[in-house]
Amino acid sequence: MRAAMGKRSHRPITVPGFRFSGIHAGIKGEGALDLGLIEVRGPRGAPGRVAATFTRSLAAAAPVLVSRPVAASGRVRALVVNSGNANACTGRRGLRDARAMVRLTARALGVDAREVLVASTGVIGAPLPMAAIQRGLPHGAQALTETGLPAFAEAIRTTDRSAKMAVRRVRVDGTEVTIAGAAKGAGMIGPDMALATDAPGHATMLAFICTDAGVALPLLRRLTREAVDRTFNAITVDGDTSTNDAVFVMSSGQARHRTLTRRADLAPVEAAVHAVMLELAQAIVADGEGAAHVFQVEVRGAGSDAEARRLARRIAASPLVKTMVYGEDPNWGRVVAAAASAGVPVDPERLSVAIGGVTIYRRGRWQGAAVEAKARARMHRPCVSLRIDVHRGGGACTLWASDLTETYVRINAGYRS
Amino acid sequence: MRAAMGKRSHRPITVPGFRFSGIHAGIKGEGALDLGLIEVRGPRGAPGRVAATFTRSLAAAAPVLVSRPVAASGRVRALVVNSGNANACTGRRGLRDARAMVRLTARALGVDAREVLVASTGVIGAPLPMAAIQRGLPHGAQALTETGLPAFAEAIRTTDRSAKMAVRRVRVDGTEVTIAGAAKGAGMIGPDMALATDAPGHATMLAFICTDAGVALPLLRRLTREAVDRTFNAITVDGDTSTNDAVFVMSSGQARHRTLTRRADLAPVEAAVHAVMLELAQAIVADGEGAAHVFQVEVRGAGSDAEARRLARRIAASPLVKTMVYGEDPNWGRVVAAAASAGVPVDPERLSVAIGGVTIYRRGRWQGAAVEAKARARMHRPCVSLRIDVHRGGGACTLWASDLTETYVRINAGYRS
Repeated sequence: MRAAMGKRSHRPITVPGFRFSGIHAGIKGEGALDLGLIEVRGPRGAPGRVAATFTRSLAAAAPVLVSRPVAASGRVRALVVNSGNANACTGRRGLRDARAMVRLTARALGVDAREVLVASTGVIGAPLPMAAIQRGLPHGAQALTETGLPAFAEAIRTTDRSAKMAVRRVRVDGTEVTIAGAAKGAGMIGPDMALATDAPGHATMLAFICTDAGVALPLLRRLTREAVDRTFNAITVDGDTSTNDAVFVMSSGQARHRTLTRRADLAPVEAAVHAVMLELAQAIVADGEGAAHVFQVEVRGAGSDAEARRLARRIAASPLVKTMVYGEDPNWGRVVAAAASAGVPVDPERLSVAIGGVTIYRRGRWQGAAVEAKARARMHRPCVSLRIDVHRGGGACTLWASDLTETYVRINAGYRS
Repeated sequence: MRAAMGKRSHRPITVPGFRFSGIHAGIKGEGALDLGLIEVRGPRGAPGRVAATFTRSLAAAAPVLVSRPVAASGRVRALVVNSGNANACTGRRGLRDARAMVRLTARALGVDAREVLVASTGVIGAPLPMAAIQRGLPHGAQALTETGLPAFAEAIRTTDRSAKMAVRRVRVDGTEVTIAGAAKGAGMIGPDMALATDAPGHATMLAFICTDAGVALPLLRRLTREAVDRTFNAITVDGDTSTNDAVFVMSSGQARHRTLTRRADLAPVEAAVHAVMLELAQAIVADGEGAAHVFQVEVRGAGSDAEARRLARRIAASPLVKTMVYGEDPNWGRVVAAAASAGVPVDPERLSVAIGGVTIYRRGRWQGAAVEAKARARMHRPCVSLRIDVHRGGGACTLWASDLTETYVRINAGYRS
């Protein structure tokens, strides 16, 4: 996992057409950055394009409600986000505050408020400190710079141990284009509605992906949905769904290639967006509250991909599996028990379970203490693999999850104190 | 919760027609009791009647597979149970071993093997130490006594901090009848398949309910199903489903009243069985691995009882809600977030949340810091109430759950070490 976190680069992350800032407005204490801005400029003063996925929570926070129609328009000139306060469960006042954030940002940047997105993350239920945000926004606008992504990434942190950024550069028609992103999330991370329905939702976090590639809006939407499904949608820390989660994919179209309108031409950009999202998603899991290990749950041979996903989620969400990974004990019976209660057809006599690449349970048979000892040794790694083969069909799914530790409990028992 | 644990009585628990024992056979270490027997005698040498519910896990353990047809026959003369080893995921050998346990018990007691039930609990995947069980069974048979329930209850413990028993005595046709039971369970406790389907299953534990009341088999089955649904089915520790869970309700029919064949005549027995099951179920939650608090989740005003159950389960299973209860912090936003992602219609603008009987969030509005402080004070109790009113319909459901603590993690990270 750590090795998969992407190529290091000493070149500063910049994306033509984008400026970023992150400042301390006074929502969080002690001078911590808590207000972030992104400005997007398309060619010849045009707005950028945006595709976005949002939480399916029925208690979607005010910024989600305010951003949805902006994202639906596909046009974006700026985005404002604060940490420290989620502006969720705040009723009409919350809606007024989210709209005010949009209006203040539009004013500070001299753009149309209908092309400004807003997001928030932090404690649920408390009203936003609007005076601080109002005072802070002009400073945030002044601080905008092409190399400001690190400050922006810092400003969106809550319980995250570190800021999360990723970048990929690829060539389109001989022109270099950049895909860069920042994300936040460490807790309340789980695929939306996964426990209640089969419908795939996206994970509970915030991510902002920026590219100068010119991609037609329908293609940008399709790309976003598919990439989110295989990345942010495929991670879980605690399986809990947030009221605020959102992924924004914004394109300035500043790169000097013709706008991509056909799927066939999209491949390099698609692969790069997927890589950036996967790196950010895995960074969220690795930073899962109190996480000591990341584990990858790979289900093969299920009746369908949907069944595989359901099995993978059940296993990844099980406290007994999570504590087993933490304890570095290849207690495979817990994996079988979780798989057998996922509500999809599984024949335990045909099931195989591999831990750390070692098949401990093959088609219903325990492979013995020596094999188990080998698997145990593999569990001391920071990323542990759990592979389940159902031997029924071609359905497959891979998820990434964090283990459950005493530190998770401590962080969440004392979150507001 | 502690107060609700039932009336204390210094009279030893005996149930006419039943004898119990619990001995050390050598499955667990250090002389711990690990093998339990129940013998049932009906009037004039007839067998007792039995109704039972079993896990819906697709990896149901060998003893479940062996006991199902016995329970389906409705006839029972004896029951054997071991702790320390679940005999689950043990393939054909496990089935042979479970059948051997039945045969050895039948031989030791001189009864028909087709009328002997078997259950196991403990580690998954290891073969049963049959030599120890074979040596132990005759001693278990010799130890059978009318006052042996405490030894039996002791012999079925795994991670349980204490043995769990309950008793009620009621009058039927002027005759006193007894309903007594023992149960075990502290971890891998969650309503079966709850996360995967809407179908109610029963919780992951073992319970043995014995009565001398004579109840016709169809009525005994109905009574069992309904009472299990409102008690063992309504608890969760970690939401994980076991491969071995079972509830056995056995009647000797030794009480001198006419066999109950009509629902109308059953009321006192029904109430007593419910009370015994509820006491045992609540004891399991209170003994939940590492539990510092029990919390009661009461959902009202949902669109249907099924919707209320789904909401209650989502809230009770949320690690964020569980750690909130542990931290004694009325962080109601987490309750709203869980409710809003349960996959059932909830309007957050109409939702109310009460913690410790104090309504912090009323129809979408936070009631302020003073009200919240009052709720916080109520969270220092060992049993905390969370009440959610959806204000939509008449659907209701009450569940009991344990909180999530560092000790839960420690117990489960080191279970086998």
